[in-house]
Amino acid sequence: MAQDKKLVEAITSMEDDFAQWYTDVVRKAELCEYSSIKGCMIFLPNGYAIWENIQKELDRRFKETGVENVYMPMFIPEGLLEKEKDHVEGFAPEVAWVTHGGKDQLTERMAVRPTSETLFCDLYANIVHSYRDLPKVYNQWCSVVRWEKTTRPFLRTTEFLWQEGHTAHATAEEAEERTIQMLNLYADFCEEVLAIPMIKGRKTDKEKFAGAEATYTIEALMHDGKALQSGTSHNFGDGFAKAFGIQYTDKDNQLKYVHQTSWGMTTRLIGAVIMVHGDDSGLVLPPKIAPTQVAIIPIAQHKEGVLEKANALYEKLSKTYKVSLDDSDKKPGWKFSEQEMRGIPLRIELGPKDIEANQAVVVRRDTREKILVSLDEIDTKLQEILDTMQKDMLERARAHRDAHTTEALTYEEFKDAVANKPGFVKAMWCGDVACENKIKEDTTATSRCMPFEQEKLSDVCVCCGKPAKAMVYWGKAY
Amino acid sequence: MAQDKKLVEAITSMEDDFAQWYTDVVRKAELCEYSSIKGCMIFLPNGYAIWENIQKELDRRFKETGVENVYMPMFIPEGLLEKEKDHVEGFAPEVAWVTHGGKDQLTERMAVRPTSETLFCDLYANIVHSYRDLPKVYNQWCSVVRWEKTTRPFLRTTEFLWQEGHTAHATAEEAEERTIQMLNLYADFCEEVLAIPMIKGRKTDKEKFAGAEATYTIEALMHDGKALQSGTSHNFGDGFAKAFGIQYTDKDNQLKYVHQTSWGMTTRLIGAVIMVHGDDSGLVLPPKIAPTQVAIIPIAQHKEGVLEKANALYEKLSKTYKVSLDDSDKKPGWKFSEQEMRGIPLRIELGPKDIEANQAVVVRRDTREKILVSLDEIDTKLQEILDTMQKDMLERARAHRDAHTTEALTYEEFKDAVANKPGFVKAMWCGDVACENKIKEDTTATSRCMPFEQEKLSDVCVCCGKPAKAMVYWGKAY
Repeated sequence: MAQDKKLVEAITSMEDDFAQWYTDVVRKAELCEYSSIKGCMIFLPNGYAIWENIQKELDRRFKETGVENVYMPMFIPEGLLEKEKDHVEGFAPEVAWVTHGGKDQLTERMAVRPTSETLFCDLYANIVHSYRDLPKVYNQWCSVVRWEKTTRPFLRTTEFLWQEGHTAHATAEEAEERTIQMLNLYADFCEEVLAIPMIKGRKTDKEKFAGAEATYTIEALMHDGKALQSGTSHNFGDGFAKAFGIQYTDKDNQLKYVHQTSWGMTTRLIGAVIMVHGDDSGLVLPPKIAPTQVAIIPIAQHKEGVLEKANALYEKLSKTYKVSLDDSDKKPGWKFSEQEMRGIPLRIELGPKDIEANQAVVVRRDTREKILVSLDEIDTKLQEILDTMQKDMLERARAHRDAHTTEALTYEEFKDAVANKPGFVKAMWCGDVACENKIKEDTTATSRCMPFEQEKLSDVCVCCGKPAKAMVYWGKAY
Repeated sequence: MAQDKKLVEAITSMEDDFAQWYTDVVRKAELCEYSSIKGCMIFLPNGYAIWENIQKELDRRFKETGVENVYMPMFIPEGLLEKEKDHVEGFAPEVAWVTHGGKDQLTERMAVRPTSETLFCDLYANIVHSYRDLPKVYNQWCSVVRWEKTTRPFLRTTEFLWQEGHTAHATAEEAEERTIQMLNLYADFCEEVLAIPMIKGRKTDKEKFAGAEATYTIEALMHDGKALQSGTSHNFGDGFAKAFGIQYTDKDNQLKYVHQTSWGMTTRLIGAVIMVHGDDSGLVLPPKIAPTQVAIIPIAQHKEGVLEKANALYEKLSKTYKVSLDDSDKKPGWKFSEQEMRGIPLRIELGPKDIEANQAVVVRRDTREKILVSLDEIDTKLQEILDTMQKDMLERARAHRDAHTTEALTYEEFKDAVANKPGFVKAMWCGDVACENKIKEDTTATSRCMPFEQEKLSDVCVCCGKPAKAMVYWGKAY
């Protein structure tokens, strides 16, 4: 059993050191590998397969709402990046610059895209002429680069993968509608597929996107009580349209500016899945996003008929599920540890006694519950177990979040909550950035969002005591 | 009818000026748009959707052979790029260099990847230790950058999209097997899905990839008689392994170098589809790659029942096919021109008389053949027509290629063929690079490949008269 223990012992307990636990899991589950480029990571097959599943499902949902995919150049000429004032101020400090092509110095240096608003605006200025050309609802899947000082796998890296949607509409109402539609799509996806409940709300002006009129966000709570911004949707109004001259002739023959939105989700979602669902044995993947849903592990596989039966089961289940069969010469305990580390939702143990009884032992990764299932009905039974597990994981995450959300009516309560009760703090706010700054300085917590579901906890700002304008979720964030 | 004509008249005839015809088609079919970055293009929805279909089908075929997808950083430190001598000499002249991150100058500049051999080697050196870790069969879908002087949409652009597979094997035999396996997979995909027949063969040393022991290629013939290298598969032997120190402990406890391969196909395949199948009315897409397979166009749609029936047909066919319905107020002739320009394989014309006769007119894009189909059996009939069209397009392309392939026994015949008979020239070669250079200088034709299917046309080199070593396909190339 020395071999079995090695894999498990190598992981730090999440209660001892959550950051180290996280690092251990991403490496031991072979999700990623560090590269020789500062701040850039390598997505290994186990990690990239999760992203492929996220892409497939999100892309399907996008297209149902009329989104069309495009691909824009990865470079942005410096002059183009500078066209919208707030935008360039927000991004220029973290841009990677290309200065040479081959042996020649470029006449104008180019940014490696940190985001592509400026490129889409340039395109829309060229191809939008009439109301008949609207709306434009384009999206691209690509990588972007932001020169980060400190990085962590999936959560913050110099290069990361994402999708960025960029739309142009005839009216302000239509743009606002699309902004909210995509935020809702993001939240539904996270809840239904990643089993992560989201707080939907609006960012304060301090926290909004560079150049946006309004930024909406979905915020999730990680196991350690820190918040993770998981997706954002921005309404730009006509600010970019005016900076880039994106005008169309309306039905009334008037020249008008378009109204724009953008929205994105990134590979940090993989980090969210790890930090919401993982445990001290490793990754726990929701069935709907797991690259492998079921791991068949033969017991006493040297005995006659075991491998044969395991193979037959593999063939049968592969028609419906994503299944693996580990018939290597490792010991079963070692295989269990590997399956648990990788977060494969279900394990099927199949040994000589099971075969004699025409049954198998199905073990849930999240609860470790062992379920005896007749081999005759295992095909349908697995779907039930996977569905239940998916649902339980969402409810467990929701219960954890609710148990780690505190209401603070006074500044003392607020500071105590941030210091001693990891999680969200709900508190009233006057709307003044000065209070946000003071709170951040005093506690390191930031405003996560003004939730759509407002509650009136009191009449006054938790910080300054002036009349409150909104209830805000606060927290320490990744 | 003035409106109908406008769209068609705007295209140059392919016999008059093939290059201008190509440019006209990619713009009028809205496949791409020029960007403000020199040599970079924007993939519009019509163009990107073709790439998505290519990706989906290729990726499926890859995974059936055990390929796993990963994602590597887009940057390569200069020192890493320089590790394999031939490789850096091949690529350094066309690399884009990042020199600054934010406000800081980098201590070592980084190349935007022109290809990722060096990154994969760096990874394999870190993660391959034992024979148990082999083979590694990784692939990534990404964009790469090569600083090109002259560019053409899809065919040669500074940034382009591709997949690059990189594998590591225990033995030389296994590496060679994988190299050929992927070349065959590429050729099968192009023939079965893109309806483009391929010549499979090996590149001469002059034309092989920088750092490879052997480069295999698939070569296609475009409508204008020029060749297009459409995919390559390289066997690196242990050259990169020695440069990067990729060693494993074998079963016999000996430390050995791995043997490596790489293979790639790019968005230039979209250019191949345009130039093999297109005609003077625009694009002609093979049914298996077409984002829209069937366009329903109502005739006299103001008449009672027409739009209703067209909508019902749309609903019915959408279950099986990728269908569009154009119920805009444009005239039918204009809609026909648009459908033809975009290369949608089938058009269904449905008017009051058709409805009365319980039939529709199905028009093939490639032959313009009109087929009367009963509405009762249209669902199954369409599949037959699409299958026939797919098959006919491949056979037509093959016949065109064969009709534009000349055998040359003397150098006079060779020069005459290159000058006056657009297409491939088959001729014997002594194996000396001097003859390749002379032929290129005299005729601008290059060696495309030494085909696997060798023929002995004569005993002597077509250029120098010395003993011949191989039959070679020559041609002017994109």
